[in-house]
Amino acid sequence: MTFAVVGTTGAVGRELLSLLAERGIPAGSLRALASERSAGTEVAYGNGRMVVEELTDESFTGIDIALFSAGADTARRFAPAATAAGATVIDNSSAFRMDPEVPLVVPEINGELITGAPRSTESTGSVASANAGRIIANPNCSAIILVTALNPLQRVFGIERLVVSTYQAASGAGDAAMRELAEQSRAVLAGDTPLPEVFAEPCAFNVFSHDTAVDADTGRNVEEQKVIEETRKIFDQADLRMSVTCIRVPVMRAHDESVNVTLATAASEAQVRGALAAAAGVRIVDDRAANDFPTSLKASGGNDVLVGRIRPDQSQGAGNGRWLGFDLFIAGDQLRKGAALNALQIADLVAARAN
Amino acid sequence: MTFAVVGTTGAVGRELLSLLAERGIPAGSLRALASERSAGTEVAYGNGRMVVEELTDESFTGIDIALFSAGADTARRFAPAATAAGATVIDNSSAFRMDPEVPLVVPEINGELITGAPRSTESTGSVASANAGRIIANPNCSAIILVTALNPLQRVFGIERLVVSTYQAASGAGDAAMRELAEQSRAVLAGDTPLPEVFAEPCAFNVFSHDTAVDADTGRNVEEQKVIEETRKIFDQADLRMSVTCIRVPVMRAHDESVNVTLATAASEAQVRGALAAAAGVRIVDDRAANDFPTSLKASGGNDVLVGRIRPDQSQGAGNGRWLGFDLFIAGDQLRKGAALNALQIADLVAARAN
Repeated sequence: MTFAVVGTTGAVGRELLSLLAERGIPAGSLRALASERSAGTEVAYGNGRMVVEELTDESFTGIDIALFSAGADTARRFAPAATAAGATVIDNSSAFRMDPEVPLVVPEINGELITGAPRSTESTGSVASANAGRIIANPNCSAIILVTALNPLQRVFGIERLVVSTYQAASGAGDAAMRELAEQSRAVLAGDTPLPEVFAEPCAFNVFSHDTAVDADTGRNVEEQKVIEETRKIFDQADLRMSVTCIRVPVMRAHDESVNVTLATAASEAQVRGALAAAAGVRIVDDRAANDFPTSLKASGGNDVLVGRIRPDQSQGAGNGRWLGFDLFIAGDQLRKGAALNALQIADLVAARAN
Repeated sequence: MTFAVVGTTGAVGRELLSLLAERGIPAGSLRALASERSAGTEVAYGNGRMVVEELTDESFTGIDIALFSAGADTARRFAPAATAAGATVIDNSSAFRMDPEVPLVVPEINGELITGAPRSTESTGSVASANAGRIIANPNCSAIILVTALNPLQRVFGIERLVVSTYQAASGAGDAAMRELAEQSRAVLAGDTPLPEVFAEPCAFNVFSHDTAVDADTGRNVEEQKVIEETRKIFDQADLRMSVTCIRVPVMRAHDESVNVTLATAASEAQVRGALAAAAGVRIVDDRAANDFPTSLKASGGNDVLVGRIRPDQSQGAGNGRWLGFDLFIAGDQLRKGAALNALQIADLVAARAN
């Protein structure tokens, strides 16, 4: 298979290159694309380097899988050229996520939606439309981490309602935000009062509401709306009741989430732990005696979503040792499972179905 | 009135001195007490300095109000000497909070519990026992910030259930924790991997579950148990249903809390905002267009509990423009309203009732 990475020079783009190199994809099977500004620069790839090419409508000739990590505008502008050239687009932006013809995929949950995309517009096969088979959306990072952790509970017990509060890293706002967190922290420690640039609020030693626009009527910000809509779409459960509060914390690259779950069917704590322990992509970190639970740093650089602080929520009633409510604290690497890793797992499925 | 501060050299002790100086208490009416180790050192007071005296059983002669900020063991050991000498003890530790004879006071909520403590054991007056009148407990910092924000909703609409996730500053673990956050952050930015000392987890650029012991059966940590029990006691509502998750974030001195409320009586958003706007100790920071909401830094150094992200929780049902569920994001200075300021507000009431 041949790959293109669109947005090579960004935080997610670099992570994609790192994961492609880990998978042993030769540099000759890979095209590193970015805007005109970055064209001609070099990026690290495996033990070597490769030259970044300018993204144009002609960039996708001979490409099987185009991994987009360059924002919604770039995706809308260039995805049609990629699919027209026969590539399958895996897009990390919000551009196509809520399009009913585009699958929104977390492989552990709904990988079956990847049905073997046609290589040419003639052979649409079982796919609803040529376009639908050719674009697969990678969900929002907070949504991916949430649904990966909750999927075993949703499958086994059903979920009626979720109350989620996030602790989101700077990486979700890209490279410049991670640099701002480091530089601002340095300045504050030196006694200065630096002016924020990437975020509207100071990010060093501060906690603040997510920087996306807030709806004047509902009071939800865009990030919260994404988590709600995408969780419902991924779980194929339009009536899932959700309250989500998205908050930024001064952390580099892993999101944490405090999750209060209302199950559809009461379960014992042992049953909940059993379901989580058996789930793909999930690792339980939960030692009460040692106070060892998921943290941002334990999740950083890893592939699993960490789940801990697993306990019954006594505020939701119980009977016979079973509970409808449970509390969880989860953590996942925003750049890996929250973005690049999930996209590559989708690519693995596309490749497998094409063979 | 004459004051003693027990634990003068700690983070809360310093804040108490700063607030006493702001109130114009002359240095001659104040005794700065600490353990033998700190005795003889000097602390700043107003524009001058004062010498720290060693805390002994004889420290409280002539003292009207003894402000304890030195942990539960010191409070248990020395509060009896203070009350025996005729002082009213206002204790910032957990030692006496859940004692049914000791009022647990947030002045905006239940200041009426301070009934004019007797100045001698002969004149017990209306107080249940001499001891009960002489010790007043200052609640846990996360509980104070939570109940101050929620009090107007509890009074007007009633509260049935709370789901709370905290974002807690280093200051709650004292001076050494604040220093560790600064020093560890500096080291990480310099490329080092410092070993944690105060906290078991690294605190720089990390989010982790609260460092108090976790109950083997319930899975709750001590901080969560305090917030639940103390909120119920302050609101005098033993059946208040609560799920609380206490989390540390790399912030110096203000706690944030994400709060999902279930009211007893449905309310419109305007009614909720009206109740919050009228409440003492609360300041609404909630501009959706400007994305201006409570943050750790906006709360730091201030006296008010900031409340924002006020919005209906659509996951709890609604009718006729009224909702049972609301989401809030709140922030308060842990050292001020969370500790020293609340203690001084209690002292103001004690002084007023004594006159």
